[in-house]
Amino acid sequence: MNIGIYTYGKLGRGLEIAAHKCTDAGLVGVFTRREPESVKTVYPETAVYKAGEVLKFKGKIDVLIIAGGSSYDTPQMSPLLAESFNIIDSFDTHSKIPEHLKRVDAVSKKYGTTALISCGWDPGLFSVARALFSSCSIGQTHSFWGVGVSQGHSEAVRQIEGVIDAVQYTVPYEEMKNAAFDGRLTQKEPHSLHKRVCYVAIEKSAAKAKIEHSIKTMPNYFAPYETEVNFVSLNELHEKHSSLPHGGSVIHSGTTGENEENRHSLALSLHLDSNPEFTAAILTAYARAVYRMSRRGDFGAKTVFDISPCDISALPREELIRKLL
Amino acid sequence: MNIGIYTYGKLGRGLEIAAHKCTDAGLVGVFTRREPESVKTVYPETAVYKAGEVLKFKGKIDVLIIAGGSSYDTPQMSPLLAESFNIIDSFDTHSKIPEHLKRVDAVSKKYGTTALISCGWDPGLFSVARALFSSCSIGQTHSFWGVGVSQGHSEAVRQIEGVIDAVQYTVPYEEMKNAAFDGRLTQKEPHSLHKRVCYVAIEKSAAKAKIEHSIKTMPNYFAPYETEVNFVSLNELHEKHSSLPHGGSVIHSGTTGENEENRHSLALSLHLDSNPEFTAAILTAYARAVYRMSRRGDFGAKTVFDISPCDISALPREELIRKLL
Repeated sequence: MNIGIYTYGKLGRGLEIAAHKCTDAGLVGVFTRREPESVKTVYPETAVYKAGEVLKFKGKIDVLIIAGGSSYDTPQMSPLLAESFNIIDSFDTHSKIPEHLKRVDAVSKKYGTTALISCGWDPGLFSVARALFSSCSIGQTHSFWGVGVSQGHSEAVRQIEGVIDAVQYTVPYEEMKNAAFDGRLTQKEPHSLHKRVCYVAIEKSAAKAKIEHSIKTMPNYFAPYETEVNFVSLNELHEKHSSLPHGGSVIHSGTTGENEENRHSLALSLHLDSNPEFTAAILTAYARAVYRMSRRGDFGAKTVFDISPCDISALPREELIRKLL
Repeated sequence: MNIGIYTYGKLGRGLEIAAHKCTDAGLVGVFTRREPESVKTVYPETAVYKAGEVLKFKGKIDVLIIAGGSSYDTPQMSPLLAESFNIIDSFDTHSKIPEHLKRVDAVSKKYGTTALISCGWDPGLFSVARALFSSCSIGQTHSFWGVGVSQGHSEAVRQIEGVIDAVQYTVPYEEMKNAAFDGRLTQKEPHSLHKRVCYVAIEKSAAKAKIEHSIKTMPNYFAPYETEVNFVSLNELHEKHSSLPHGGSVIHSGTTGENEENRHSLALSLHLDSNPEFTAAILTAYARAVYRMSRRGDFGAKTVFDISPCDISALPREELIRKLL
C-alpha cells in the first residue's frame, strides 16, 4: 500500500512518522501548500511536493490521507480529491458529518473510489465504542474529553487584549466519570461534566482581574463552565505547557435482568501525550481498510462504523484470530 | 429477525431476557435437553421445545443462539446445527478456537449458512479491543480478568473433601493494571497479574488448615497464584456470594514520535453484576450481524473480527452516524 499525505502541519508530521513505522505501507510523499523547499520533514528521505501537483500521482497513491483542518480545508479537499484517489480524512465537526458524508459519497461512487471520513479518536475509536456499547446494552452513554489541550479555546484566550500566549486544558470531573460508570449520572450538558483550566502569560501592564473576567464570561467558549485561570510567565508556559496531550473516556452503564436488577458498566479510556501523533497512527491503520475495500470494489464514502477489525489489522485474519481472539 | 435459544441454562435464561427486550427480534422458543414440562422460563409465554425437535424449525428461525458449554456441548452442537441454521456461539476455549472455526466453516460454507463463533465479552468485546488497540498502535496489550467468579475454580474447591460449597473470585492487582496503563508492566504471566480469593463453607469436622493447604497447592488451578482462603458459614456464602459478577480490562500502552518519546494508553474496562446476562445481551446484538450477513449471502464461519459496528446496531446506518459518530 502506497500512501500520500495531503497538507503538512502537526497531523501531517505525525502521519509521516506513522507511515515510516508501518511495515506494510510505503510513503510516496507529503503534499504541502507552502514552498516545498521551506518544509523541513522528520526524515530527510521524505519527498515533498506542491499540493497542486497531487493529480500527477493518480494511480501511484493507493490512499491519500487528508491532514487539513475541519473548518475550511477538509470540506473542500475531500470531495475534490475523492475524484482521483481513495482518501481518508479526520473531519471532526460532528454536526456537519452527515452533509460531508453525502458530498464525498456522491463523488466517490461516481468515480469508483473509497473514502473514509471522520476517522481519528473522536470521531473514530470513541464512536466505535459508543456504537458497540449501545448496540449490546440499553443504557446511558456519556463521553468525557480531557485532560487535554483544546486548540480552539487556547486561541480564544490569546485573542484577549493584554494576553501574550495561553493554553487551555479541558478537564473532566472525576466524580462525574465515576457516577457515569456506576449509572448514577443524571447531568448531560458538557459544562456539568468538565471544567476549563487556563495558563495565561500576559503583558506587564495588563490587568489580571479584567483578563480573568473576560475569559470566564466569554460566551460559547467559557461561560457557563467552571473556569480556572492561572497567570504564569511566558517561560513557564512554554516549558510546562507546550506539548499537546489529550484523552478522554466513553462510559456506558446499563442494566439486565427480568427486573433490571443487574447493572453493567463499560468504559473506553484514552490518554495521549501527543494528540496529533496518535490520531495519525489511527488514520494509518484505517488506511489499510480503505485500500482493502477499494480493491474489492466497495466504493463510496465510509465511516468507522462500516469497518471490521480484520480490515484495519496488519495481521492476516488467521493470525489475528489465533493471537487476539 | 426470529431467534431460537438452544439449551436452557444460565446463559439461555439470560438470552430469553435479552430477546424479550430486543425490539427487532422475536423469540421462536427455547430448546432444552430436559423435559420441557420441567423447565420454568422467565416469561410464561416463552415456548419450550425438546432440543431434538429443533430441525422441525428449519426456515422458521433466522439465527439459532447456542447456549451450551464450551467443554463438551458447543464443539458438537455448532458444526451440527450450522447445517440447518445460521448460528452464533460463545465457544471460549481460546486455544481450540482455530480448530472450532475450521470445522464450523466447512459445514456453513457447504450448507450456505452464516455462523459466528466465540462471541461474548472474552472472546468477544475484549478481542475487538485487543485488535483495535494493536492495529492502531505498536505496543503492549495486557488482559486482566475480574473481580469475578470463576465457575471452574469454584468447582475445583468444591471437590476437596470436607468442603460443602465454595466460591472463587479472580482478582486483578490494581497496581499491575496501573503499570500496564502507564507502560511500566514487564510481567506477563496471569499469576503475576491476578490473585485468587476463595470463600469456603466446610463440614464441622473438617480441618481448616488441611483444606487451605489443598486449595493453595492445587496444580493448574491455584499454584502458583497468591491465594486467599476465607472460611464462612453456608448461610453467609449463599447470602453474599451467590450472584455471578465478573469484569476485566484490556489495557494497551504504546509510543509515538520520532524517538518514541510520546506515550499513549488505551483501556477497555468492564464491570458486570451478571456475567451470563451481559454475555447474552452481546450475543443478541451480534445475532443481528449474523442475520444481515446471511441475507446478503456472506456464508461461512465468522468471528467478531469480521463484523462492523453497523451490522450489530439496531439503528439504521444514517441514524447511527448522526447520533453516535
